[in-house]
Amino acid sequence: MPRRVVVVGTGLIGTSIALAMTRRGAAVRLADRDPAAVRMAAGLGAGEPLPAGPLAEPADLAVLAVPPAAVPEALSDAQKRGLARVCTDVASVKGIPLAEAAERGCDMSVFVPGHPMAGRERSGPGAARADLFAGRPWALCPGPETAPDAVAVVTGLVRACGAEPVTLDAAAHDRAVALVSHAPHVVSVAMAARLEAAAEQDLGLAGQGVYDVTRKAAGDPRLWTGILLANAEPVAAVLEDLANDLARVVDALRDSGAAKDAIAAERVAGLLRRGRAGRARIRPPNGSPTN
Amino acid sequence: MPRRVVVVGTGLIGTSIALAMTRRGAAVRLADRDPAAVRMAAGLGAGEPLPAGPLAEPADLAVLAVPPAAVPEALSDAQKRGLARVCTDVASVKGIPLAEAAERGCDMSVFVPGHPMAGRERSGPGAARADLFAGRPWALCPGPETAPDAVAVVTGLVRACGAEPVTLDAAAHDRAVALVSHAPHVVSVAMAARLEAAAEQDLGLAGQGVYDVTRKAAGDPRLWTGILLANAEPVAAVLEDLANDLARVVDALRDSGAAKDAIAAERVAGLLRRGRAGRARIRPPNGSPTN
Repeated sequence: MPRRVVVVGTGLIGTSIALAMTRRGAAVRLADRDPAAVRMAAGLGAGEPLPAGPLAEPADLAVLAVPPAAVPEALSDAQKRGLARVCTDVASVKGIPLAEAAERGCDMSVFVPGHPMAGRERSGPGAARADLFAGRPWALCPGPETAPDAVAVVTGLVRACGAEPVTLDAAAHDRAVALVSHAPHVVSVAMAARLEAAAEQDLGLAGQGVYDVTRKAAGDPRLWTGILLANAEPVAAVLEDLANDLARVVDALRDSGAAKDAIAAERVAGLLRRGRAGRARIRPPNGSPTN
Repeated sequence: MPRRVVVVGTGLIGTSIALAMTRRGAAVRLADRDPAAVRMAAGLGAGEPLPAGPLAEPADLAVLAVPPAAVPEALSDAQKRGLARVCTDVASVKGIPLAEAAERGCDMSVFVPGHPMAGRERSGPGAARADLFAGRPWALCPGPETAPDAVAVVTGLVRACGAEPVTLDAAAHDRAVALVSHAPHVVSVAMAARLEAAAEQDLGLAGQGVYDVTRKAAGDPRLWTGILLANAEPVAAVLEDLANDLARVVDALRDSGAAKDAIAAERVAGLLRRGRAGRARIRPPNGSPTN
């Protein structure tokens, strides 16, 4: 387990990691472009503010808990400043930030891209929880250039946070999260958008079903725009198939008319059966609420 | 509160109503085309099996807890047999079954269409709960032809089950449930269908988000095919708008490319903001899990 950790970005994820590592006895230093966020995280017991100016010695690990588009610059800055011997990030997209970091001339041998599969709809340090990652998968995407020692340091952080490391390559990661996180987010949003102009009486009939389907839509639109654009093609591919299925159901429903034509019914039933089969393949997550 | 109640159809909803009314001291008689379902419901304490043959006296109320397409025939049968002075149903679609019942020559003055906004993914009498309706809305759709006395009897049942009666006309009901129940079901299914052929490793990264979005997809495909076809146009209208929004996001994501073009970003962000606004309009349901 890394003993000296710097967390850059004290939002929900960064502060939760800092809380978990502080509880495990690590010395955690906190940084954020917003000084109020650092004060709040420090006030919650997540660690001490990172002092300005040169460092006596690099930390064991810097966790770059910034949005996907900010990762390359944060990595470049951390390496120039000698903040830590190893860096990792927590962004939910890997391919494009990795390519940009390499283009900027970052030392990719000591950068281990990471993505904890956990989150909450609430954001900011005030929503952080030391047990946010308990029992959750945490994707690690080292490349052929990554030093095994660096992977070992980050794996130590993941286990210290109570999470389960899952190693896969960046492109496979991005396709997987497009399917199990990013596309479901857009689907949830697209359903919730229908409620925006609905009559109050109609919404009075809403129950747990639509509440669950639209839960992800409460997420931060700015953060999610960045995530979706950074993983554009894998997300677009999933959503395109999905929109085509919906269009086919619309056609089948309109073809069915009042006569409940058997062929139209079978087209609807076919999708419902595929959906039930797909649903049966995922298990209830253990641990904390996640994205 | 009706003192003598017949429940026709001892599935999840019928048996839950029977359990609730038995606990309130009503004399409940149970019927189902499947004798095993009646025995199971009776064994759970939901009431006594309805005897075959002619009835000494009609009950105060018959609850027709059958699928939407079976309501007209069940109503016609109940009235021919003199089963009860008043009938209600629990189907999640009102317009087409009502029109078919009137066409069959049913006495519409003593039929009060109803729809408890509660349910579970599990079905059958074994999943029934006396408190399934506690705190939930229960739509009632009397028409100009419905006798006020009949509405009073059904309102008594609704309150005895712990639910809140919400009166609206059949067409408004069907549009409302298309929006808050039927379309969310199809959306959940369409997302879940993407998981059917997914790699096991990808599914290992799934968390609470996709689990919530796809929860409704676990519902019974046969039952839901019937519901969707019986409310075809209102559901199709919601899904068509939704599929168009998804297609626009797909285009915006592909336009954005690696350059993260600002106009494409704004198209994505606009939907995310609308989704968050729509989500903010629904409240966490109280009471039991519902559709």
